[in-house]
Amino acid sequence: MSGQENSGIDSPEDSQVYSLAIDGMGGDKGPEVVVAGLNIAADRHRNMRILLIGDESKLLPLLAANPKAAAICTILHTEQSVPMDMKPTAALRLRQSSLRLGMDVVANGQAKGVVSAGNSGAMLALAKIVVKTMPGVSRPAMAAVSPTVKGDLVALDLGANVSCDWRNLVEFAVMGDIFAKTVLGLPAPRIGLLNVGSEDQKGDEKLRIASEVLRESPLADQFAGFVEGYDFTSGKVDVVVTDGFSGNVALKAGEGVMKMATALLRQVFNRNLISRLGYLLVRPGLERMKEWLDPRRYNGAVFVGLNGVVVKSHGGTDAEGFACAVDVAMDMVTHNFNASIRERLEHMTALMAQRQSHES
Amino acid sequence: MSGQENSGIDSPEDSQVYSLAIDGMGGDKGPEVVVAGLNIAADRHRNMRILLIGDESKLLPLLAANPKAAAICTILHTEQSVPMDMKPTAALRLRQSSLRLGMDVVANGQAKGVVSAGNSGAMLALAKIVVKTMPGVSRPAMAAVSPTVKGDLVALDLGANVSCDWRNLVEFAVMGDIFAKTVLGLPAPRIGLLNVGSEDQKGDEKLRIASEVLRESPLADQFAGFVEGYDFTSGKVDVVVTDGFSGNVALKAGEGVMKMATALLRQVFNRNLISRLGYLLVRPGLERMKEWLDPRRYNGAVFVGLNGVVVKSHGGTDAEGFACAVDVAMDMVTHNFNASIRERLEHMTALMAQRQSHES
Repeated sequence: MSGQENSGIDSPEDSQVYSLAIDGMGGDKGPEVVVAGLNIAADRHRNMRILLIGDESKLLPLLAANPKAAAICTILHTEQSVPMDMKPTAALRLRQSSLRLGMDVVANGQAKGVVSAGNSGAMLALAKIVVKTMPGVSRPAMAAVSPTVKGDLVALDLGANVSCDWRNLVEFAVMGDIFAKTVLGLPAPRIGLLNVGSEDQKGDEKLRIASEVLRESPLADQFAGFVEGYDFTSGKVDVVVTDGFSGNVALKAGEGVMKMATALLRQVFNRNLISRLGYLLVRPGLERMKEWLDPRRYNGAVFVGLNGVVVKSHGGTDAEGFACAVDVAMDMVTHNFNASIRERLEHMTALMAQRQSHES
Repeated sequence: MSGQENSGIDSPEDSQVYSLAIDGMGGDKGPEVVVAGLNIAADRHRNMRILLIGDESKLLPLLAANPKAAAICTILHTEQSVPMDMKPTAALRLRQSSLRLGMDVVANGQAKGVVSAGNSGAMLALAKIVVKTMPGVSRPAMAAVSPTVKGDLVALDLGANVSCDWRNLVEFAVMGDIFAKTVLGLPAPRIGLLNVGSEDQKGDEKLRIASEVLRESPLADQFAGFVEGYDFTSGKVDVVVTDGFSGNVALKAGEGVMKMATALLRQVFNRNLISRLGYLLVRPGLERMKEWLDPRRYNGAVFVGLNGVVVKSHGGTDAEGFACAVDVAMDMVTHNFNASIRERLEHMTALMAQRQSHES
């Protein structure tokens, strides 16, 4: 189970370093969406060089139809790919899958990051084994951006770890802070720790310890204490830190409510001729609201805490959504996301070790 | 710390059993909302008799102004009450608080249930100590009804237990089933166990064991397996079972998204003169949608698994919302909610003991 062994990459001729490796075969809709997404992203990132990994016989015709993508892509051919419903343990055995090769080139430095719309479980497992967890980080987390009433917010963990201890939460806060600085461009993001109430005595021990450690840390000024489920959208904080179970549940519960609201609104507008006329009058504003909340704009969840940039696109997204996931990966690569995390974690490690020895 | 000692109730003259005890002093807006709420509820429940607990000097003038409430209420006077921000441990020391006396009369059989809009933490702590947990239940849970695209749904636990084991989850499923039958009137509610994905291998051990136990239980036919955050609103199931941390977070995250959607819609409608005209045309439909989602309609969270009916009204609700909490309590009292739970739990206890001995 080592990422160091021969990965089957026999020389995309040059020793060039690619900006990103892209899993050409991942996603519910496969290579069509990936290549069309690259065609869109190509316009936004001038010097981006892509190593596109997958079945040449499928990718070549798509590149022919998407010339901007063709201009920035080199194909690394493989016939193996990870099906969307394959268990992570099985995916780990496919040494030549497009997803695996994407991780390999990040691990060996041929690419600075990898983007896939494929199987999330397989992606996390492969990332941990091949790209490996960053020194000083106990566990990688899944982070993503979502809309609030006031601006955007970073939430993590969104499902990489179903349970967490206080160290994990403190590390998530560190990584979330750098993420918000890098992707949202905020100079001093406000950080909240998710709990069932904002009072100090709420929640369990891991939350209380994580809160105490953060209050004594270099993040103290940015730390807003405990926040609640409302605060995923209230604009009170810029980063919400939580375990992967609650984060995943909250994110999906919110998406569910948004879907319900949309379905009910559709009924309201389609009620009769008068309401349909009303709809026409408010449509321009609704279109802007739809743009603001567009899930494609928020596509691209990042596995943070790895020795490389690993970005997961939603499997069901379209070309525009995939291009947004590429944007996120490029932000990370360009702004040296991982170097900033390493630096900040060094400050925190001493603090956490102190707390830990205090405990035992 | 015993509920059996003298509770300071010296005879609302008769030995009558009251339908409900009502904490007259709880809630952000205090007695005004409570008495006005009872005035509304009085019309809906013919033979309801209320023991209204609190400061006579405040309650009497309000009853004079709300004659329907006056007709069904007997006052139990006390000057003590639990402030909304008091810690549970402090609230336990107030032996004459309106909340404590409400629990006392349920424990000693003078009332079949109690409703309060007061301090939730204090309410749960007092309920556990005074009304006590039902035999066969490890821990009480907080359950409430919320809207989905298709109908209503029962979710539990919503915050009584920040962490849970598989036995708790199985018991929550049993209580949620009876709750959905009692309050929603469903003959065979579909039950889902909240997880980060619907595949069998997702989540942690407590979820996998709870799922296995439910599959072998009398609830097997109603058990839909793992569900996700989306399913709080998707209509796929009628009962969502989870621990109190995730349940609380999901509920509030959903409320937050609904607030954000409402705020954005308001902007859409107020954009200009044309959009304001559009609003007027769709208003009748919007009003119906608002009614459907009205949080007051869903007011009344129930602490299930106690030797009596204990219902928590939202502290910030209005009279109509408080009346809905009274409705929920009356549903529970009328349909013998607790007797049904006891019966079903007997069937499950053997099954769980078997599993447990299998484990050790």
